[in-house]
Amino acid sequence: MPPIKKYLLTPGPTQVPPEVLLEMARPLIHHRTPEFSAELDKARERLKPLFGTAQEVLVLSSSGTGAMEAAVCNLLAPREEAIFVNGGKFGERWGKMLGAHGMTAHEVKVEWGRAVDPEQVEQALERHPRARAVFVQASETSTTAVHPVEQLAEVTRGRDVLLIVDGITSVGVFEQKMDEWGLDALVSGSQKALMLPPGLGLIALSERAWERARSLKTPRYYFDLNRELRAQRDEHTTAYTPAVTLVRGLNKSLELIHGETLEAVFARHRLMAEAVREGARALGLKLFAPDSPAPGVTGILAPGGIDAAKVVRMMRDNLGVGVQAGQDHMRTKLIRIGHMGYVAPFEMLVALSALEMALRQHGYDFSAGAGVAAVQRRLAAGA
Amino acid sequence: MPPIKKYLLTPGPTQVPPEVLLEMARPLIHHRTPEFSAELDKARERLKPLFGTAQEVLVLSSSGTGAMEAAVCNLLAPREEAIFVNGGKFGERWGKMLGAHGMTAHEVKVEWGRAVDPEQVEQALERHPRARAVFVQASETSTTAVHPVEQLAEVTRGRDVLLIVDGITSVGVFEQKMDEWGLDALVSGSQKALMLPPGLGLIALSERAWERARSLKTPRYYFDLNRELRAQRDEHTTAYTPAVTLVRGLNKSLELIHGETLEAVFARHRLMAEAVREGARALGLKLFAPDSPAPGVTGILAPGGIDAAKVVRMMRDNLGVGVQAGQDHMRTKLIRIGHMGYVAPFEMLVALSALEMALRQHGYDFSAGAGVAAVQRRLAAGA
Repeated sequence: MPPIKKYLLTPGPTQVPPEVLLEMARPLIHHRTPEFSAELDKARERLKPLFGTAQEVLVLSSSGTGAMEAAVCNLLAPREEAIFVNGGKFGERWGKMLGAHGMTAHEVKVEWGRAVDPEQVEQALERHPRARAVFVQASETSTTAVHPVEQLAEVTRGRDVLLIVDGITSVGVFEQKMDEWGLDALVSGSQKALMLPPGLGLIALSERAWERARSLKTPRYYFDLNRELRAQRDEHTTAYTPAVTLVRGLNKSLELIHGETLEAVFARHRLMAEAVREGARALGLKLFAPDSPAPGVTGILAPGGIDAAKVVRMMRDNLGVGVQAGQDHMRTKLIRIGHMGYVAPFEMLVALSALEMALRQHGYDFSAGAGVAAVQRRLAAGA
Repeated sequence: MPPIKKYLLTPGPTQVPPEVLLEMARPLIHHRTPEFSAELDKARERLKPLFGTAQEVLVLSSSGTGAMEAAVCNLLAPREEAIFVNGGKFGERWGKMLGAHGMTAHEVKVEWGRAVDPEQVEQALERHPRARAVFVQASETSTTAVHPVEQLAEVTRGRDVLLIVDGITSVGVFEQKMDEWGLDALVSGSQKALMLPPGLGLIALSERAWERARSLKTPRYYFDLNRELRAQRDEHTTAYTPAVTLVRGLNKSLELIHGETLEAVFARHRLMAEAVREGARALGLKLFAPDSPAPGVTGILAPGGIDAAKVVRMMRDNLGVGVQAGQDHMRTKLIRIGHMGYVAPFEMLVALSALEMALRQHGYDFSAGAGVAAVQRRLAAGA
């Protein structure tokens, strides 16, 4: 018998508030109407503080990967050179995309679980002076580590090099100051901190990135950002039929976020991250990214010989608590607990409780309740 | 005061059944779970009869335009030649996409409102013997005309030329026999006959199209169909995070379609199309595509000097009946009424009634109630 009530605590898709689910269950409207235009305009405006930008934020009907590809094919031409930070599955994805589009991609390899050192990027740029862009994750969801994009921008902004940032698990999770830091592209998706189902990609570009996008004639159509900018900014609709229900949901979701206030949302994410980390430590467990842990997702290493994938399966199938194993070579080693978006701090008690039970079943020995107690102590101390 | 109850009778997005809206309002599930895999597998299987294919139907998280681009960039290489039938806005879109991807696109120009003559395509292929593919719409939504794709396949299937068909307003609207006719790619979208919000693109390829896709190394990533085939067929999930709620809705929607039976759905669409056409004729109005009218959408020419866009606006804003004006140069001349998906035959009474009222307001003279009476007579005669 599966549990009657389930908790989705994965690093995305995340839970969707009932208010947003109901908003999306309203009768369909057409996308070439004043009603839809008003919703799109409002949602795009409400996104700006999450990106930390005064630039236009464009809404694409695709997953975050589609928005990442939009950054690649609008900002670089085939055979141009770029640097990409490969510190996990999504860093690797930048490299694959660049390769697929015929760019020459120079890898800055970072050990999984670590943040890139800005000096590594600086050196790579010196070795490859023709590189036109640096691609990186603000938060590498696969390893639960954050990269220092603010410091990376100090390296790129004085050069003729664009800094292109995957913010899929950073936008709305913790503060992003795109304009102030000098990020040239910031990409996100709907199914993380935005408390929506997957299906929307988001992207904002800096002024110099827009100049690049305008000057380039690369193969692109669905993800042509120039066309999309004209549609969304000037015509108040999208270039192609948008995912109407998700856009309405986005608007509702952003209303909830700004109602809570962004500061409170960020503090809640931090609180949950710290609570989970203290819970894990109290169980004698090691974090995968102890030096630069992500505020939206925590990676815990399965202790001595225990198969993380089996622990995750037991938590999900027997206990109703959906978390994720690591990806690729970390599948049997890493347990990832998501805590962003529509997640309440008390759910960290649920996460640690299920983790304790599953680990116990797999023969791990610890003082029962120690994890949950540590979570409680951290929650009680407040944000 | 806007009307309390609205009728969405546009050629897409179309109405979504409450059962499907509620299905999509269920709590989110993760896309790497047995639960999601079962839903995706079932939906993909249930799509095959709508395409008339035993091939895999792939589900993409994009609008139909994204799936069209997938056909372009997976089946042709830059600088290769292709023919495209341009008989409306969406035919023109094939040409733009081919151009954007660096193909040499030869146009077969067809007057808006007309079907292409297969001989035109045959002649184009003789003039351009290096053309590797023909791109066409099964139903050109912008002009409400259908093109004879079965006959076009007779031209292409004996040659080394792929026939690539936009079936966005044909799949699930009227019978498509992809395998039997010999179509090489059939593309669709969620927001028409599939009774879903926009946000999913669909595509199936013939065996020889898959051979092409496998052999090509064109710039593509998000829309790489080889990668997507491996994910969906072999791994029972999608390559990138899918629009989970829309996939669940799709599954539900297909359950409703097969419950009604495909034959009954097609007959209902035909009945509604004929009823609207007879209603229009009874008002002395001219159809835009009288010789090959589409079963999913009917185009009616605004009579003498009346601005179609104004009639459409009045129907929508004052009467609550959402229909669409023509596109581009037909904006002030054409009124398009959609009748596919979750539309009941009785709603054709609503459409004609609102049309009568709006035309009367714009000074058009006719025998009041003649349109509605003609609809009623056709409905009473049965499918």
